Amino acid sequence: MIEIKVHTKPVLRSPKLVGGLPGSGYVGKLAADHLIKELGAHLAAEIYSYSFPPQVLLKDDGTIELMKNELYFWNNPTEGPDLLIMTGNAQAVNPEGQYELAERILGLSKEFGADSVYMMAAYITGRYVDRPKVFGAATTSEAVAELEENSVTIMKEGSVVGMNGLLFALAKLQGIRGYCLLGETSGYIVDAKAAQAVLEVLAKRLDIKVNMVDLENRAKETEKTIRRLEELERKAVEQATKRGVSRERELPYIS
Amino acid sequence: MIEIKVHTKPVLRSPKLVGGLPGSGYVGKLAADHLIKELGAHLAAEIYSYSFPPQVLLKDDGTIELMKNELYFWNNPTEGPDLLIMTGNAQAVNPEGQYELAERILGLSKEFGADSVYMMAAYITGRYVDRPKVFGAATTSEAVAELEENSVTIMKEGSVVGMNGLLFALAKLQGIRGYCLLGETSGYIVDAKAAQAVLEVLAKRLDIKVNMVDLENRAKETEKTIRRLEELERKAVEQATKRGVSRERELPYIS
Amino acid sequence: MIEIKVHTKPVLRSPKLVGGLPGSGYVGKLAADHLIKELGAHLAAEIYSYSFPPQVLLKDDGTIELMKNELYFWNNPTEGPDLLIMTGNAQAVNPEGQYELAERILGLSKEFGADSVYMMAAYITGRYVDRPKVFGAATTSEAVAELEENSVTIMKEGSVVGMNGLLFALAKLQGIRGYCLLGETSGYIVDAKAAQAVLEVLAKRLDIKVNMVDLENRAKETEKTIRRLEELERKAVEQATKRGVSRERELPYIS
Amino acid sequence: MIEIKVHTKPVLRSPKLVGGLPGSGYVGKLAADHLIKELGAHLAAEIYSYSFPPQVLLKDDGTIELMKNELYFWNNPTEGPDLLIMTGNAQAVNPEGQYELAERILGLSKEFGADSVYMMAAYITGRYVDRPKVFGAATTSEAVAELEENSVTIMKEGSVVGMNGLLFALAKLQGIRGYCLLGETSGYIVDAKAAQAVLEVLAKRLDIKVNMVDLENRAKETEKTIRRLEELERKAVEQATKRGVSRERELPYIS
Repeated sequence: MIEIKVHTKPVLRSPKLVGGLPGSGYVGKLAADHLIKELGAHLAAEIYSYSFPPQVLLKDDGTIELMKNELYFWNNPTEGPDLLIMTGNAQAVNPEGQYELAERILGLSKEFGADSVYMMAAYITGRYVDRPKVFGAATTSEAVAELEENSVTIMKEGSVVGMNGLLFALAKLQGIRGYCLLGETSGYIVDAKAAQAVLEVLAKRLDIKVNMVDLENRAKETEKTIRRLEELERKAVEQATKRGVSRERELPYIS
Repeated sequence: MIEIKVHTKPVLRSPKLVGGLPGSGYVGKLAADHLIKELGAHLAAEIYSYSFPPQVLLKDDGTIELMKNELYFWNNPTEGPDLLIMTGNAQAVNPEGQYELAERILGLSKEFGADSVYMMAAYITGRYVDRPKVFGAATTSEAVAELEENSVTIMKEGSVVGMNGLLFALAKLQGIRGYCLLGETSGYIVDAKAAQAVLEVLAKRLDIKVNMVDLENRAKETEKTIRRLEELERKAVEQATKRGVSRERELPYIS
Repeated sequence: MIEIKVHTKPVLRSPKLVGGLPGSGYVGKLAADHLIKELGAHLAAEIYSYSFPPQVLLKDDGTIELMKNELYFWNNPTEGPDLLIMTGNAQAVNPEGQYELAERILGLSKEFGADSVYMMAAYITGRYVDRPKVFGAATTSEAVAELEENSVTIMKEGSVVGMNGLLFALAKLQGIRGYCLLGETSGYIVDAKAAQAVLEVLAKRLDIKVNMVDLENRAKETEKTIRRLEELERKAVEQATKRGVSRERELPYIS
Repeated sequence: MIEIKVHTKPVLRSPKLVGGLPGSGYVGKLAADHLIKELGAHLAAEIYSYSFPPQVLLKDDGTIELMKNELYFWNNPTEGPDLLIMTGNAQAVNPEGQYELAERILGLSKEFGADSVYMMAAYITGRYVDRPKVFGAATTSEAVAELEENSVTIMKEGSVVGMNGLLFALAKLQGIRGYCLLGETSGYIVDAKAAQAVLEVLAKRLDIKVNMVDLENRAKETEKTIRRLEELERKAVEQATKRGVSRERELPYIS
């Protein structure tokens, strides 16, 4: 059900796993993508799963991208920790698939030496704010205290759903520290400010430098792509509705 | 798919498995939680499953709780039976997960010596009553007769759905007695009175003493927590609706 | 996922598998139940599956019935064929469960010697008719011709959904003959006339005698039971709607 | 979960896998069926899966057709490539089933020597056009360039969903070339013109001759069949709605 293609088996110094996947507000995905590009991280492994949406994405050169998660690595040129950066173009579509994927990605990261996990995601409020806060939670009291030292507002209730929640939470079961950093966002846009707020906390905490100059442009590009895809999706649903049949389930027939 | 972490392998005298999970009215969950705290039961095992909701709960100290079921044990200081008490923060989200979990929990309980199962849940009527009745069913005619001796109103039709139903029913297949105790409740509140009614029947039947003084406060606390979570849930759905996309399934895209 | 409890391993003379499960109109289930009771068939095996609805049914003596399918056998006192009769209180809730269950039941029946399968179900028209027709299909042209000799109206288009369809159709893959007999019914009631029409065709075809006197009473009893259950179901949904939460998925919370 | 019945193990010269399954607009299915009949292709294998819809189709002679995919082969009498042609009467109903099926079909095709895959499907616009364009994508830049040489409009965004998308995309993971050809169609009819446009591109690309004379008749026949099935489906839903119960999930009860 899950296939892992290891491209490079990196040699890393006490690496931290940092991740973000498509989800509400795209904050985590945007932050992870930015990190990969700004740091010049290299692909370590691709992860394929039968639980991803059964489809293929089209790239702007007419070739394709399968649904997948990816693990990148970055060798820190300074004395700080190396990084493993996890992202992807999809989340698994069912609970079992999400749990299994989270466990496999954590397992692979541990194999590459990871001793803690930072998941980046969105904290959706429905309101626009000028200076988004960063909310957080962690797997141990010490880790919570560390987040507080970095001006993270600690969450004390509710839940974090999907892979972003599972990846840092299951770290607990595997005996490594897990942190969750959620950027405050309205949820209506691909939010560069929320992603920047999260990345600033992360950079400070891990003592790395991340140039934020291109982040807003990246967010605008992403926003445009998503709006176009939403439009395609909307039209497809419209036409399916007109024909009176579901788009996914056409009637079988004998030819 | 299921992982059982045994913390303590208890030594027990003809223990009874008593359980309650989140479900309509929260009667069973409230009763099980109360029993664990009032008796001072100890954690025997945690049960994790890929079929639980793919999310993580936040605790009030900023740390987290994975979705799990738990098995507690209690050594009865008097001559009565010891107890295994099962509860959890979730039910599996699909039939296969519920069946498998029920079988594993029963298997573990049998390993710890359990010779009968009492599941506590709600009997929802939509009406408020001052003195809730306790409804019941059991796996054998003898067990039904025992419930009748304890003033339980025997159910003769319909069904008990979810884990609360499966756990006492599958006991039958495993050759141990199963009882179900359903506290009459409107279904609109976390109902301390319904939980108390169920616990009183149970305590009498098993000849144990349970102090009910804190039960109502516990119900009020639970009620408050749930209302806050419902509010969070409501807001999240609202925002997702405004954006015009489903909250769980964001569009995948190429970065 | 599937557990088969064999109670009696019957010795049978070229038995036919005859089956009917709960489904639209309850025609097949009613016919199978009637056949079991009128012929005095004996229980050969119970079949349990993780894919059945996760619930337990309450019997009128306060004991319970797990969701299951059953295989009965009947030793024909005349020279005609013996029977295996399959029924149950549920169908599996997902495609994989239905396919797997159908294959296992066919496999068990073949083990007991079955050389053909007759599935009984409903042909729903939305109109009341005085003398319901019997529609049919089969796995081979010869079998279709046999049905035509027995005044069955051959179906030439459409599909038969669920276990009633799979059980006679998968017989084809296993190299035994499959027949489907569908009693014409409005679909609004538990239809004794439709079940009788189907049983008459079956009895004639297999040269067995089935007393139909009690069939109408049986249908009335079934109708009453189902109406009561529908009422229970309706009320439960009503209350869940009032509370504003789904009945199956309560919010998890930390106690 | 998947059973492959190999009828003939064909000996083929550098065959191309060409496929089309029921889906929006039925363009791919229509094109694949036409190809099989016009070329006189022979059945190589039938593929059954537990993930197909749990039902059986009725044929016009009263016999049945199980849900299945099929692989045909064609020995090219000229010097051009031989073909493997894949079609079927259904797509798997869940992501896991679709991924697994796509992998198995690709595996079988590779076993038979296939070195590239052409999937045919629909590009739905909601508008009628007189001369439908053919849209496309491919797994490599070279393959994209080949499509451009054949006047295919290259898609640069969006996604291809379902088996039609997975089959050509997963080819990439298995190291063989994948092409997707999507015929422009309104989506409201079974579109002979769209299928013809796709087949013309394919025929030119693979240097084979396909007579298109019967294609329009075939489309009309298919259209009629589907309209009748939609009507049956519509009626069934209507009656289920009248009875106030879901058509698939009847209440279980104790007989």
